[in-house]
Amino acid sequence: MVFEIGAPVVPPSPSVREEATARLAGLATPAGALGRLGELSVWVAATQGECPPTPIERVRAVIFAGDHGVSDHGVSAYPKEITPAMVRMFLAGRAGVSAIARQHGVALRVLDVGVDDDLDGIDPAVQDFKVRRSSGAIHLEDALTPDETRRSLEVGATVAAQEIAAGAQLLISGDMGIGNTTPAAALIAASLGVPASEVTGRGTGVDGRALLHKQELIQQAIDRLGDRSDDPLDTLTALGSADLAAAVGFMVTAARAGTPVLLDGVISVACALIADRLAPGAVAWFAAGHRSPEPAHSLALDKLGLSPILDLGMRLGEGSGAAAAVPLLRSAGLLLTEVALLADLDLG
Amino acid sequence: MVFEIGAPVVPPSPSVREEATARLAGLATPAGALGRLGELSVWVAATQGECPPTPIERVRAVIFAGDHGVSDHGVSAYPKEITPAMVRMFLAGRAGVSAIARQHGVALRVLDVGVDDDLDGIDPAVQDFKVRRSSGAIHLEDALTPDETRRSLEVGATVAAQEIAAGAQLLISGDMGIGNTTPAAALIAASLGVPASEVTGRGTGVDGRALLHKQELIQQAIDRLGDRSDDPLDTLTALGSADLAAAVGFMVTAARAGTPVLLDGVISVACALIADRLAPGAVAWFAAGHRSPEPAHSLALDKLGLSPILDLGMRLGEGSGAAAAVPLLRSAGLLLTEVALLADLDLG
Repeated sequence: MVFEIGAPVVPPSPSVREEATARLAGLATPAGALGRLGELSVWVAATQGECPPTPIERVRAVIFAGDHGVSDHGVSAYPKEITPAMVRMFLAGRAGVSAIARQHGVALRVLDVGVDDDLDGIDPAVQDFKVRRSSGAIHLEDALTPDETRRSLEVGATVAAQEIAAGAQLLISGDMGIGNTTPAAALIAASLGVPASEVTGRGTGVDGRALLHKQELIQQAIDRLGDRSDDPLDTLTALGSADLAAAVGFMVTAARAGTPVLLDGVISVACALIADRLAPGAVAWFAAGHRSPEPAHSLALDKLGLSPILDLGMRLGEGSGAAAAVPLLRSAGLLLTEVALLADLDLG
Repeated sequence: MVFEIGAPVVPPSPSVREEATARLAGLATPAGALGRLGELSVWVAATQGECPPTPIERVRAVIFAGDHGVSDHGVSAYPKEITPAMVRMFLAGRAGVSAIARQHGVALRVLDVGVDDDLDGIDPAVQDFKVRRSSGAIHLEDALTPDETRRSLEVGATVAAQEIAAGAQLLISGDMGIGNTTPAAALIAASLGVPASEVTGRGTGVDGRALLHKQELIQQAIDRLGDRSDDPLDTLTALGSADLAAAVGFMVTAARAGTPVLLDGVISVACALIADRLAPGAVAWFAAGHRSPEPAHSLALDKLGLSPILDLGMRLGEGSGAAAAVPLLRSAGLLLTEVALLADLDLG
C-alpha cells in the first residue's frame, strides 16, 4: 500500500488557525458579519499554514468513473450505457461540471477506473488507471476483491500525488457511474450503523416501488456485510467499487500531503467517511461544497461535522456541487487577505 | 417623477421562459438534477429574452450610503462615524464587498446619498447625488419630506439608467449606513402588517436590552405611520431614508428597463418590497442573492416569493451577499448555454 493505514493525520496548523481567527476578528467588519465565509477563511488559512492565505488559484478536479453491478438490478432511472457516454461528454467538455469548472478555471480530468465498457477510441490516458470493468452487485457479493480494493486505493493515491505535483492548492473528487448512489448510501449506512431506510434517496430519479426496491437492496448489502462493517477496508471491498475506492485513496493522500479537498455530493462524502476511518483526522482537510437532497448526504456531513457551503438541491454529481462552491471558498480566503483592519478605519 | 408610479411592470418573456424550461429538461443531466441552478437558468434566460442566454459578464453594483437619525437613539452597536469611514474604505477598495466584487469582476460604485458628514477631500463624483445629511429619527418624525423622497427616487432612477447605459446585464444595490437595519425592518413590518417583534434583528450586533430597545423604537415608528402604511410612497417617506429611497428608485427603474437585479441583504429586500408596491410586478426582475440572519429578511423574501441562492449567515451588507452569489447566477446561465442535450449523448 502506498499509504499507511490507521495512522492519524497531522491536522492543519493550529497556530495559523489561531492567527487567522484573530485577524478575522480584527477586520473592518462587524464581529461575525461574514458568517460561514469567515469560518471558511480561517480553515483556508490553517490548511495553507499561512495567514493571510494565498489566493486559491489552482483548483484541480478528478472524476473517477466506474460502473456498479447493482445497476443491473433496477436501482437507477438510467441504463449503465450512460456511464461511458458521459465519460465521452466530459472529454468533449459539454457536461454540467464542464461548464462550471471552465467558468472557475478548475482543471478537470476524467479517469475510467471501472467503467463497464472499453471506451474504444478515446484518449488512452483516460484508461491508464483502469482497475476492472464494473463491480460486484453489492447485495449479492463483494464489490471488489481485497487486491482490487488495494489497487484502487493506490490509483487514487497516485492520481492525488500527480495533481498535487501539478500545483493543486485545492482538490475536488468527482464521480460518474450509473447506480453509484446505491454503494454510497450503503457505505454511509454501514459506517454510521443506520438502516437502509435512513439513507436511501432518489439518486437520478427513482421513485415509488423502484425506490423501495433500491432500499431493500441496500439493506441486503448492509446485512451481507455484517460484522465486517467494523473494518473500513472490508467495508469498502464489500460495498464500494473501484471508482469509489480510488476516490478514497485520493482523499487520504491529499489529507496526508496537507492539500485541502472540497467535497461534492453523496458519493464524495461517502468516500470521505471511509477516508477518515482509514486515516483518522483526514476530515480536518475537507470542506463540504454542497448538500444534495440525498438523505445519506446530510447524515454523513453531520457525522463528519461539516456544514455545506451550498444548499441548492443539486444532485448531478460529477463534482459539480463542489465546483460551484469554489468561488465562495476563494472569497473566504480573499476576505482575510484583502479586507482592511478595523484599525485602518479613518474615523476623521 | 422620472418614472411612472403604479403602472404594472412588463414581466420577463413568458415565451423564452417556456423555451428555457424545455431546454433545461432536454439537457444531458437527470431531470431536476441542477436544482435551484436550473430554476435560475430559466429566470436568467427569461430576463434576457433569449435562450440559451448570453453569459452574464457585466455586473454593476452601486452602494447607496446614508445615515439614519434613529442611530442617535441607541439602535446600533457602532457610532455613525463609521458610515463616512466606510465610504472612504469602499473608495480605497478595501471593504468586504470590495474584495468579492473585484474577484468576480463586478464594477463597484459608491454614492453618498445621505451621509451625515461632508466627506471632505473625496472624489466629488461620489456626492453628485447627495440629497441631504442623515434622515429624521423614524420613531419620532418622518425620515424625509415628500419632496426629498421624490428626489431620492429620482437619484436611484438616474443612477440605474447610467449603469444600464454603461452596459450592465445585472445590477446589484448595496447599502452602507449605521443604523440602517432599523428603517429596513420598519419598512418590512409596515409592508407586511406585522409587529416589530417579528422583524427586529441584531443588525451589526446589538443584544439583550439594546435589542429590546431597538424593537421598541421600530414599533413606535410603525405606530406613528398608522394608516399611511397603505401608501408605499408615504411609507418610504415616513420610515425610509434618502439612501433607501434611492435604492428603491434604482430597482424600479431596472425592472422597467428589463434589467435584472440581484438582491442583497435586509436593506435590499426592504427596498425591493417597496419597489414592487410602487411598480407592481417588479419582483419578477429580482433574484435573491442570499439570506441573512435578520428575521425581517426571511419574511420579506417569503412575501416576495423569492428563495435565496446563498444562506451563509452573512450580515455585512454593502452588497456583499449579492456579490458573493454572482458566480452562481453566472453558472446557471452557462449551464443552459454550454451543456449538451440528452440527444447529443453517444450511447454507442
